Amino acid sequence: MARHFSLSGFPEWLPEQRLVEQHVLETLQRTFEMHGFSGIETRAVEPVSQLLSKGETSKEIYLLSRLQADQATDDAELGLHFDLTVPLARYVVENAGRLMFPFKRYQIQKVWRGERPQDGRFREFVQADVDVVGQDTLSQHHDMELPLVMVDALSTLPIPRVIVRASNRKVAQGFYEAIGITDIEGALRAIDKLDKIGEKAVAELLVADGATGEQAALALALAGITGTDASIADRVLALGARSELLETGLDELVTLVEGANELMPGSIVADLKIARGLDYYTGTVYESTMVGHEDLGSVCSGGRYDSLATDGKKTYPGVGLSIGVSRVLARVLGQPLVEPSRKVPTAVLVAVLDEDKRRVSDRVAMALRERGIPTEVSPSAAKFGKQIRYADRRGIPYVWFPGEPDSVKDIRSGDQVDADPATWAPPSEDLSPSIRMLS
Amino acid sequence: MARHFSLSGFPEWLPEQRLVEQHVLETLQRTFEMHGFSGIETRAVEPVSQLLSKGETSKEIYLLSRLQADQATDDAELGLHFDLTVPLARYVVENAGRLMFPFKRYQIQKVWRGERPQDGRFREFVQADVDVVGQDTLSQHHDMELPLVMVDALSTLPIPRVIVRASNRKVAQGFYEAIGITDIEGALRAIDKLDKIGEKAVAELLVADGATGEQAALALALAGITGTDASIADRVLALGARSELLETGLDELVTLVEGANELMPGSIVADLKIARGLDYYTGTVYESTMVGHEDLGSVCSGGRYDSLATDGKKTYPGVGLSIGVSRVLARVLGQPLVEPSRKVPTAVLVAVLDEDKRRVSDRVAMALRERGIPTEVSPSAAKFGKQIRYADRRGIPYVWFPGEPDSVKDIRSGDQVDADPATWAPPSEDLSPSIRMLS
Repeated sequence: MARHFSLSGFPEWLPEQRLVEQHVLETLQRTFEMHGFSGIETRAVEPVSQLLSKGETSKEIYLLSRLQADQATDDAELGLHFDLTVPLARYVVENAGRLMFPFKRYQIQKVWRGERPQDGRFREFVQADVDVVGQDTLSQHHDMELPLVMVDALSTLPIPRVIVRASNRKVAQGFYEAIGITDIEGALRAIDKLDKIGEKAVAELLVADGATGEQAALALALAGITGTDASIADRVLALGARSELLETGLDELVTLVEGANELMPGSIVADLKIARGLDYYTGTVYESTMVGHEDLGSVCSGGRYDSLATDGKKTYPGVGLSIGVSRVLARVLGQPLVEPSRKVPTAVLVAVLDEDKRRVSDRVAMALRERGIPTEVSPSAAKFGKQIRYADRRGIPYVWFPGEPDSVKDIRSGDQVDADPATWAPPSEDLSPSIRMLS
Repeated sequence: MARHFSLSGFPEWLPEQRLVEQHVLETLQRTFEMHGFSGIETRAVEPVSQLLSKGETSKEIYLLSRLQADQATDDAELGLHFDLTVPLARYVVENAGRLMFPFKRYQIQKVWRGERPQDGRFREFVQADVDVVGQDTLSQHHDMELPLVMVDALSTLPIPRVIVRASNRKVAQGFYEAIGITDIEGALRAIDKLDKIGEKAVAELLVADGATGEQAALALALAGITGTDASIADRVLALGARSELLETGLDELVTLVEGANELMPGSIVADLKIARGLDYYTGTVYESTMVGHEDLGSVCSGGRYDSLATDGKKTYPGVGLSIGVSRVLARVLGQPLVEPSRKVPTAVLVAVLDEDKRRVSDRVAMALRERGIPTEVSPSAAKFGKQIRYADRRGIPYVWFPGEPDSVKDIRSGDQVDADPATWAPPSEDLSPSIRMLS
């Protein structure tokens, strides 16, 4: 039942599917604002030099050129942003004097990646990010605040349950250093593949990178630890490694998961196999999977970065997470797992008795809209049966018949009652389309 | 007071300005849905061949290329869309079997044009479009419906009054043909410059294009006619020209303005100097200016096109209008003419007495959010004076102090009362930031 998109990697939704997307985006926005986060949007383009400052993703960038660029112009080379973090860093430095820190912002926008489209990967997709950015310092308690904002948001969406997992770079790095693994980045990248390729293959990767069999076994033992309380630290320390960095990381991680589960039981699980490929995270890292849809990979990820940006004088540490909205939507719309209660916003169709009397129907519609009832007027003065069919095909629940007196029919039940456009209203659940999960 | 944007032609707003933009976009969305229009979004890119099918704007297109495209890929050449009409035409043809006609859609998205940025012209900007598209036929009454949707939307926005003007291509074309002007397109383009260059210069243009002095004078006389009732037809016919096309156009225009002003007095003015540069309009055309800001040019324009698209078997006639949201916003934010009542969504800041007691404040915040009150917790356990200053700088109206009992202070009045997070609520006008026009 998955849609075929006319341009591979560029999803587009039918109007009734867009109702689901709108509901998701509005729910995210409302939740983020409920937590005091300010919405911003950044332009879609950045200078290529800015985009390339993270080398790893360079091949995914779409460059822009003007079809008829003339010699006289001297534009910087521009590319479409591939995430919302690089633009945030630039925005924060550029507007530092006009922002207040810690700066809590959410941002819901499309991003573009020129990579080969495949299952769950798009070339154009919507991300929803929340981050808090400090000036020079940023308290550790935000490492718990940010994933809880996302837990609140995700649990309100009409999607399967999402489990948020956290780890801490300092734990892995401190541990690897203590047991003598030298290629820390390589080890993190290998561990990151655990769910995809399994323990045996990861051990082989680690050994190929220069680790001994014993070191590989210890790294895998560390990656196997999960939990929601201080016992995770005991189990890590039972593996024998010790370092200041490891202990700092364990402190941070235990504080995070204990605090989160005290406030919202079951909200966040510590899972030491989470490594995150990107090298700019410096502390806590997050990943999340949708229960029953683990094949999609992480649908909400992020972490702590000690220096999101710097302007030479000041640094801007941050912590945040990003939801892959399009990835989640493509799944729940594709199966489908959700559906809207109707295909259009309209609650009432006002019938037209005769083309000469269209103005009468227009006035009824105006009166209903003035009281917040989404209303359209029948496009033709066809036989009533045909006008009712127009409403029925779209799922519009009510058809209004001007007359003396006017009457309104619930076309689901067939009930018809006399009504006055100045006073009648549908039950509140019929005002707007609602979004429901299919069992 | 206009903002300088770090990349010329690419506007970005501060968080408090974005509150105004969000209010505008949400108001437009709500109004369009109140009239039964379905929201859609289309991908940002189209094949260049599609974009070039309207030759006139070719030089404004941004082309995409992948930074590290390999030979193996065989992608169609892509460009960023420069309006929302070309994508709509493609979307309608592509999804015709899954859409219901007449198809009423709104679409609020960014578009990109590679043109040289200047006053009120951007390279990236937001448009808000409403269109209704028929299959093979589309009733004339939609020519009145669509501008009234926009009148309803524009009058609800926190912006100066907008006057919507309408004309009809058939009137100008029929009139020009009847008086012997042969270069119809040239004459329309000349008349389109009337507000910018004045009558004398337009007459010279017309004569340079081959018109006689008398023909130029008649064309200018036609362009001088405005009104809101059937008298406009009388004044046109008094100029002596007659043709079937002219009379059809006058009928359509009089029906539109009489109907619109009967339903919503003062809503739409017929103004025969409106020509619209684009050659795909075939009947009614619309333009709108913001009172006191006529220098911005038209802020909401559109028209009727007998063939928005065709798939060989069927044609899709349409009528619609587009608001230049960024152009309007840049003006009202730049002056500024509007401001938000506070800079952040937060209604309540919960103070933290001591870093060890942060969890107590977290629980208060959760209880308030659960009842729909946007709340954040103070980022530091600094002295209360400093925490109150944090709220004050952002315009957060209330600061909550956990205690026995808890209390909440309105920092505008200084009033402080005992309060329970399970029952206290601010007045509804303090729940969210409101947007007000400055006098």
